[in-house]
Amino acid sequence: MIDDDPTVTNPDNYTILWENEFVRVLDYVDVPGTQTVPHRHPNTVMVTLTDFSRRLRSDRAAVDTQMTAGTAVWLPAQSHWGENTGLTPTHVILVELKRGGAGDESPTSLGPETNHRSSAA
Amino acid sequence: MIDDDPTVTNPDNYTILWENEFVRVLDYVDVPGTQTVPHRHPNTVMVTLTDFSRRLRSDRAAVDTQMTAGTAVWLPAQSHWGENTGLTPTHVILVELKRGGAGDESPTSLGPETNHRSSAA
Repeated sequence: MIDDDPTVTNPDNYTILWENEFVRVLDYVDVPGTQTVPHRHPNTVMVTLTDFSRRLRSDRAAVDTQMTAGTAVWLPAQSHWGENTGLTPTHVILVELKRGGAGDESPTSLGPETNHRSSAA
Repeated sequence: MIDDDPTVTNPDNYTILWENEFVRVLDYVDVPGTQTVPHRHPNTVMVTLTDFSRRLRSDRAAVDTQMTAGTAVWLPAQSHWGENTGLTPTHVILVELKRGGAGDESPTSLGPETNHRSSAA
């Protein structure tokens, strides 16, 4: 639903940088303590431009995620809301996949896939 | 061809961070003066972790590209080689699209699509 689009639910934090037929690229910024409201992501590659400490919640679970700047992770299609639980602002770029790449939301997906978490050297 | 894969042609610069059925994510690093040899990219979203000054060449053209850190651009499928023409090391993350998203190489594509170039605020 359009109402689940994070650029609609949290326009102060999510900005569309550009999009084409294959991807939509978002910029996300916040400050410590910022909380988002429920929204949905398609399959997404998230690239951290800053360190990132975040508690993500869904209707059924919560997960704490810490990443360093310069990391790329796979965020499988999911609905969630989150909070910056760190001491510094967050800045990330999200590459949302479209078409066949967008994926189907799994109710059990929450946060990035840890087996894909990898710090850039 | 496997021989056109930048992780094969320039293994000191390109590293596979991870991949799944939809994307392959590469880390690229170099220093001023580094030159790559010809290689091929599928459709790719490139995210700059540092400022980026680069001369890209193909058999028929050359283009100079400057980007600031925290920028995301669309690199349409293309073969090229490049040189760090800046005064600082380069560090970028490349999100390569697979399957229907990989695209067909156009011989006239060289460098990022400038209409998609957008600096993160």
